[in-house]
Amino acid sequence: MALKQKDLLGLEHLEKKEIELILDTARPFKSLFTRSIKKVPTLRGKTVVNLFYEPSTRTRTSFEIAAKRLSADVVNVAVSTSSVVKGESLIDTGKTLEAMKADFVVIRHSLAGAPAVLGRNIHASVVNAGDGFHEHPSQGLLDLYTIREKKKHIAGLKVLLVGDILHSRVAKSNIWGLTKLGAEIRVSGPPTLIPQAIENLGVKVFYNLNEALKGVDVVNILRIQVERQQENLFPSVHEYIELYQMTKERMSLAKPDVMIMHPGPMNRGIEISSEVADSTSAVIYEQVTNGIAVRMAILYLLSGNYSSGDASRQIKAV
Amino acid sequence: MALKQKDLLGLEHLEKKEIELILDTARPFKSLFTRSIKKVPTLRGKTVVNLFYEPSTRTRTSFEIAAKRLSADVVNVAVSTSSVVKGESLIDTGKTLEAMKADFVVIRHSLAGAPAVLGRNIHASVVNAGDGFHEHPSQGLLDLYTIREKKKHIAGLKVLLVGDILHSRVAKSNIWGLTKLGAEIRVSGPPTLIPQAIENLGVKVFYNLNEALKGVDVVNILRIQVERQQENLFPSVHEYIELYQMTKERMSLAKPDVMIMHPGPMNRGIEISSEVADSTSAVIYEQVTNGIAVRMAILYLLSGNYSSGDASRQIKAV
Amino acid sequence: MALKQKDLLGLEHLEKKEIELILDTARPFKSLFTRSIKKVPTLRGKTVVNLFYEPSTRTRTSFEIAAKRLSADVVNVAVSTSSVVKGESLIDTGKTLEAMKADFVVIRHSLAGAPAVLGRNIHASVVNAGDGFHEHPSQGLLDLYTIREKKKHIAGLKVLLVGDILHSRVAKSNIWGLTKLGAEIRVSGPPTLIPQAIENLGVKVFYNLNEALKGVDVVNILRIQVERQQENLFPSVHEYIELYQMTKERMSLAKPDVMIMHPGPMNRGIEISSEVADSTSAVIYEQVTNGIAVRMAILYLLSGNYSSGDASRQIKAV
Repeated sequence: MALKQKDLLGLEHLEKKEIELILDTARPFKSLFTRSIKKVPTLRGKTVVNLFYEPSTRTRTSFEIAAKRLSADVVNVAVSTSSVVKGESLIDTGKTLEAMKADFVVIRHSLAGAPAVLGRNIHASVVNAGDGFHEHPSQGLLDLYTIREKKKHIAGLKVLLVGDILHSRVAKSNIWGLTKLGAEIRVSGPPTLIPQAIENLGVKVFYNLNEALKGVDVVNILRIQVERQQENLFPSVHEYIELYQMTKERMSLAKPDVMIMHPGPMNRGIEISSEVADSTSAVIYEQVTNGIAVRMAILYLLSGNYSSGDASRQIKAV
Repeated sequence: MALKQKDLLGLEHLEKKEIELILDTARPFKSLFTRSIKKVPTLRGKTVVNLFYEPSTRTRTSFEIAAKRLSADVVNVAVSTSSVVKGESLIDTGKTLEAMKADFVVIRHSLAGAPAVLGRNIHASVVNAGDGFHEHPSQGLLDLYTIREKKKHIAGLKVLLVGDILHSRVAKSNIWGLTKLGAEIRVSGPPTLIPQAIENLGVKVFYNLNEALKGVDVVNILRIQVERQQENLFPSVHEYIELYQMTKERMSLAKPDVMIMHPGPMNRGIEISSEVADSTSAVIYEQVTNGIAVRMAILYLLSGNYSSGDASRQIKAV
Repeated sequence: MALKQKDLLGLEHLEKKEIELILDTARPFKSLFTRSIKKVPTLRGKTVVNLFYEPSTRTRTSFEIAAKRLSADVVNVAVSTSSVVKGESLIDTGKTLEAMKADFVVIRHSLAGAPAVLGRNIHASVVNAGDGFHEHPSQGLLDLYTIREKKKHIAGLKVLLVGDILHSRVAKSNIWGLTKLGAEIRVSGPPTLIPQAIENLGVKVFYNLNEALKGVDVVNILRIQVERQQENLFPSVHEYIELYQMTKERMSLAKPDVMIMHPGPMNRGIEISSEVADSTSAVIYEQVTNGIAVRMAILYLLSGNYSSGDASRQIKAV
């Protein structure tokens, strides 16, 4: 079994079986991290380019470490949007990286669909590391991995996403992935930050967080961009905290074994209280660990190396 | 046969035989790129420092990939000009890198001659990655490589450089290299952007591009720095397009098998039409691929490893 | 024998034996630099994160090269202070890097004590690469290494630190280390730049540099931050030069075999004359070389690999 496309653009276009393949493949990579030498030679001699049109520390670092643990050579290219304006087009940049024989281009871009455009124009595998308000598939996959690892299954779980659903690519990727794996999805947040059409995706909308929380297995709390306030999309940080901050009291409305997730970086005291962030229900740092394993699985599966044996066999041989 | 100097500062001071040695050495490195593992252990345990005083994505990335494909360790040092003003002198910076036992310093600097100064003061091999309006020898060499690969020879070819010759280090390196290898060189561009003295180098000047194009085998189109307009060096972008943009119609004035080159990044619709850039006559992305092979050859030859066998033998052995 | 703590935070808390262990361990790493392949597999499969909250070329590059010569994977994270303000806390960033299974976090931070806070909160080894006005232990250790290598011993030597003692973390680390190894320490500089309490550490204060120099074996000249002038901490660059610049004439007041040190980057013509910087008494670039060896020793010893044999044995085996 293999991934059907050369690119990873989003969870919308992945089949359930492909998602499960990625999650299954990530597991042996995660087990590698307990070893003294956390590295396999799988992608030796391959070149991974991190092409970031938006600043990012967390996702870029995670992909860089994932690639290096696969023994790939990694080149970071940070393109400030200002220089792009006077610079060459995305396609010309992509074709340049292709001509350099990059095997993978991991791209973050402020425009939804930019990775898809790139992927159609070059032979290298394109991995979407976040495009506009569209998708952030590696984050969605690591969230799925984390839920499955802790809850043993995903089908039938009640998963609640809280916050700025409208601008969140993390939310979009979660919704596509969770739906395919059979979870029941709820979203909650200020009405201005929840797109109307989202109910068409089979998602239940709750403007009242306390109601939304009743009986849920998983709460995934999105990062609030305080800058959005200037767009008048939510009235004040104070009011947001009042209505939507995940607190210990609110958490008690969910199932007793509720899992608390956050893609990071957290605004402690805004969308999440420190008490919740540091509680035993939180799996926030586990998500980070899983992120590396999942990104290793993505690179590995896209590399076409899967034909020469499964990941766990290859890791054992090291 | 070997390079005579420890540094690569420009094509002006390379002998014809040395240029041919670099081009010959690049060929087996290029063949490496079709393999699954695009890497040789040639420079394992060597340190390459990319010391860039001017921002560059393309050249820095190319040198970084070249060095990594030779298994060298690469360290990027981006020095903004502002911090240089209050910082230490170029020579002190170079001596610091020498003390760190860097084997190569790849330097880009806004001052012509900076790499030469550095090279005289440190034992590490200095590679000029572009100095002011002076030279950009690795670009010149990759252009020569690309021409020779496609046309089988360089002697006797008519090569036309179009654009801002005055400020172009790419043009300077091309002129030195092409002259040594026996090509006939023409330049064309606005009179304000063509240095008078260039005819002393044996170059024919054409202010009329249409005339310049007659019978040429190769056209190398330089990137226009739109910022130059403010210096009143050319009247308007509109007028530049009118008189000097390489279009399909103009291209038909050259030989039927004319090769179109551009060092990138392209300003599509300014110095080159998209139709020309995407035509089968264009070898622009081939130049990028060759750039990595040529830079691998440069690092390899300067490393003094050549005594232990030629590159092709070493690659076969991997 | 081993280091007692998982972190290297400062020389204040290292025992004399631990300091000597680091210096002894650095020696075989330095000998490695004369080889063709300047690399050992000691930290293969380990991840070193350079987490720099202040810009730094020299120290970051030195740690990066040290880690790469130990075959570790290195990830650079440059955090501008502005983004930290809106971003996550240092502890959350640290826990994220821990969750990524970083083995080492090399941190530079403008706040004294930040590395200690980090070290208490994560399992990875934290190496202080400079924190506020507190300590810069790897610099202190490389200074000790350089003195011991040249003078064969440290106990009983008269060592003079000149300049801005108040704001210098290099001075603090030198004072702690030199005291533990039995040197006699003098400091000299403008009264506004010398903390009163420093005499409690057993240091002799001289406001007159000429008197301070009498009979000293080593002079370590600190970099002057010309920006400090705006804080009215010293009257003028002109006056500083007059009273505290290390000149050839002043140097003759010290012992004939005096060693001149500077942590770099030098302000030639301000705190040090070019004549002194380029004299045979200066060991300034030797310090840079030793810096890499000492940082390799630090990473090696903290890695706990010492149990499997001493460094020199491991290097010989390569």
